[in-house]
Amino acid sequence: MEQKSGTQSVQDALKKFKALDEKITHFSSIVGLAEWDQKVMAPKKGRNVFAKAAGTLRTEVFKLSVSNEMGDVLAALSTPENDHVLDTVTKAKVREYKTYYQKSKTIPAELFQEYSILTGQANDAWEEARDKNDFTIFLPYLEKIVDYKRKFAELFGYEDHPYDALLDEFEPGLTVKVLDPLFAKLRESSVKLLNRIQHNGQKTRVEIFAQPYSVEKQKEFNHYILPIIGFDMDAGRLDETVHPFAQTVNIGDVRLTTRYLEHNVRSALFGTIHEAGHGMYEQHINQEFEESVLQSGTSFGIHESQSRFLENMVGRSKEFWTYFYPALKQYFPVQLADVSLDDFYRAVNTVEPSLIRVEADELTYNLHIMVRYEIEKALIAGEFEAKDLPEIWNQKMQDYLGITPPTDTEGVLQDVHWSFGGIGYFPSYSLGNLYAAQILRTIQKELPEFKSLIKNGRFDVIQEWLRVNIHQYGKLYTPNELIVKVTGEELNADYLVEYLEEKYSEVYSLEDK
Amino acid sequence: MEQKSGTQSVQDALKKFKALDEKITHFSSIVGLAEWDQKVMAPKKGRNVFAKAAGTLRTEVFKLSVSNEMGDVLAALSTPENDHVLDTVTKAKVREYKTYYQKSKTIPAELFQEYSILTGQANDAWEEARDKNDFTIFLPYLEKIVDYKRKFAELFGYEDHPYDALLDEFEPGLTVKVLDPLFAKLRESSVKLLNRIQHNGQKTRVEIFAQPYSVEKQKEFNHYILPIIGFDMDAGRLDETVHPFAQTVNIGDVRLTTRYLEHNVRSALFGTIHEAGHGMYEQHINQEFEESVLQSGTSFGIHESQSRFLENMVGRSKEFWTYFYPALKQYFPVQLADVSLDDFYRAVNTVEPSLIRVEADELTYNLHIMVRYEIEKALIAGEFEAKDLPEIWNQKMQDYLGITPPTDTEGVLQDVHWSFGGIGYFPSYSLGNLYAAQILRTIQKELPEFKSLIKNGRFDVIQEWLRVNIHQYGKLYTPNELIVKVTGEELNADYLVEYLEEKYSEVYSLEDK
Repeated sequence: MEQKSGTQSVQDALKKFKALDEKITHFSSIVGLAEWDQKVMAPKKGRNVFAKAAGTLRTEVFKLSVSNEMGDVLAALSTPENDHVLDTVTKAKVREYKTYYQKSKTIPAELFQEYSILTGQANDAWEEARDKNDFTIFLPYLEKIVDYKRKFAELFGYEDHPYDALLDEFEPGLTVKVLDPLFAKLRESSVKLLNRIQHNGQKTRVEIFAQPYSVEKQKEFNHYILPIIGFDMDAGRLDETVHPFAQTVNIGDVRLTTRYLEHNVRSALFGTIHEAGHGMYEQHINQEFEESVLQSGTSFGIHESQSRFLENMVGRSKEFWTYFYPALKQYFPVQLADVSLDDFYRAVNTVEPSLIRVEADELTYNLHIMVRYEIEKALIAGEFEAKDLPEIWNQKMQDYLGITPPTDTEGVLQDVHWSFGGIGYFPSYSLGNLYAAQILRTIQKELPEFKSLIKNGRFDVIQEWLRVNIHQYGKLYTPNELIVKVTGEELNADYLVEYLEEKYSEVYSLEDK
Repeated sequence: MEQKSGTQSVQDALKKFKALDEKITHFSSIVGLAEWDQKVMAPKKGRNVFAKAAGTLRTEVFKLSVSNEMGDVLAALSTPENDHVLDTVTKAKVREYKTYYQKSKTIPAELFQEYSILTGQANDAWEEARDKNDFTIFLPYLEKIVDYKRKFAELFGYEDHPYDALLDEFEPGLTVKVLDPLFAKLRESSVKLLNRIQHNGQKTRVEIFAQPYSVEKQKEFNHYILPIIGFDMDAGRLDETVHPFAQTVNIGDVRLTTRYLEHNVRSALFGTIHEAGHGMYEQHINQEFEESVLQSGTSFGIHESQSRFLENMVGRSKEFWTYFYPALKQYFPVQLADVSLDDFYRAVNTVEPSLIRVEADELTYNLHIMVRYEIEKALIAGEFEAKDLPEIWNQKMQDYLGITPPTDTEGVLQDVHWSFGGIGYFPSYSLGNLYAAQILRTIQKELPEFKSLIKNGRFDVIQEWLRVNIHQYGKLYTPNELIVKVTGEELNADYLVEYLEEKYSEVYSLEDK
């Protein structure tokens, strides 16, 4: 009898859980569409009022996710006797909601309210500070945000380092203990490699990008390559925004944006390929996960691995341009008249220390992240305070990249992340590169013809491998489970270090170390 | 003491009512955006799943509108002692929600459920029937829909005629008793006028529209005129769809669509002007009504009056083309090389009995509506059955327009309305024309320079008049209250009859009657 009533209650809980999951996913899908629309389509006069409408729906999603009903259902599905009745897929769904529910519940409502208001105001202060190159305008907000984040870390709890509690929001399960040696190795090898390139590298013909490239032609070329590299245009779109992004409405509706600059042809080109990497991840998720919380990439880092894999490992490879360069030359016959394939390949792989993260090349990009990671970690641990940031920032830029920002606008104020409280976010970008290189190693083992597939435009074969091995799973596995499943081992920095060494030795004709 | 507790409870009810109203309006605004997006922007593979998400949000709006909380609040605000505490604006809001609440509550949930499933399926059946020119495919669904509508009419209640209960959904307060003489007069005079035109009218140069007009140039011209005629492009957009429509997200975000056909330049041109009429009504609503149920036009008929006023009374006037024809000739110098302003004006006002309502001219359009109105009214009254429709349809087409549809696809099956249960909708179109002519008469009195304003492109003055006298009120007044307020009298068919007589006498150089 008890057994039966137990089973009964699992069935009940599952039914309620499914209904909640579906409603939350439906509402989130609409919120996603609304966000895309407001950035890409909406006329300006309606946006303020619409933001309130979207806020109402977002609040509804939050309320459902932390409702008593959700709490009861999660509790019912988490009892030891019920837990082992659940299948893997349901367990993963419960895990996702439980993490969010528990985190939200540990923060007192009042504290969360204050924090939400603060981050709302902080964005304006950050914009003003950046525009006026005056860190002190942003400082009081940043100080408070750091205070809150330190409090949250204590409330969420952690084993070794308070920053772990924040990292976990972006890369579930990741800790400083794991990340420190990975990033240290990457940083040291990158600094050395950069040095060698700067002192012994043969110059590339990067000046070919200083010419004007017609925006209309750029658009045509971007729309031309997108389906070839595997993005399904019947399940997505490509539009224009100042800040490119990928937005999922559902598996059959993934929208990319890019930015066309007449005097920077690389911006749209690699931006589009990057976003397409994010987009295809989402397009390839198992349709059985549709209308559920699993219908999305598993973490910021894994997501970024897919965009960077496509942008850099594929899109900046010699083979990629062996396939696409003849077409590109047809679009820009004047600009590329005397530019050989090799010239072009080397030019798109130019390494140049620069101040702004989002404009950095594949090698120095990680050094920008190291600056931010080390700052965030120490800041949360209380090793220094927000007021010390400009000085520390500039010192680290000098140490790793050999340049010192002349202004805070081009230094510590350049990124939006801290203003919305996204401390713990930055590591995802370099994690993406680490994951990508490790996946590249595996793919090259399993598809020995990898390079020739790219050279022959058989991106479908590569995407199919990614779909089967990574994309289809959505949030079924945690990032760590997934990387072990795909590559047979935990995250290892050696692959990225070797990849960068090998690539730039060739691009810059470096002598042996 | 009692007085105090009474006041207290009004304050409480008002607070809850405001919160509910805002939430419903926010969600409806997002539903509106989502509907626009799925028709205009969404890639095809995501639409089916997204339809479920949008359905979830639409259901939430419905649930909130008929919730016990809403019922209690409406009851509290409707007690005699509380009612006279409310201001006019709040009273109008209560009226709007109460009407919907009461109607929804009169239909048993089960019956409504069955009906919703039926209309879902009926659309597919209608499409198939139309595609295969086979009325019998649609008939079983139509029979059931008519049954339900007859039941609903009984449940909603009416004084004289069951069709009144259905009319009320589209034009609150309107009855057969009021409409019959208006429509009879319009029908009789239109049939006579059509006859005179066909027998004594001088032919127009309608063949100028048989030439190809570049779609690109059409687009440019449409985008050129839209802001001039008063549509605020910072508070709206113009896109393309197969079936043109206007969709409001909020007062600052009103989106129009149009359809460009190379071989029918009139389609996009007058379609855009028509939708702009709807759009400007919504753009001009008092911003104090934003985020409330009043933030929309007051009825289908009044809404249609604004689109038809702009499309026909303004957009097909001699003065309109006196202003715009030189520009149009620059866009299409070849097509319009030997076409004078007068030729063009007469050509856009060509009268030609045709089978399809949406392609009909300004005069015969109303006769298409008369066919549908008379059929719907008699059908709901049980004077005949759905199976008799093709025969009756064809007979009426012959009687009023002098043509008999060769197929049901071009006859009784041409419109989507019945498949979604929209019986009572069609009269709105001709009501729009009646209201528009009556408003024209008033505007010509109050702005004696009306014609010269159009001739000089001073559409801003005309729109300002419409804004102040009609648009700003949103749903504050019922349609009947509004037309009396604006024109000083109830709806009167004489104005449209005179307007048509006068216009076509000139266009076709008709002798006196």
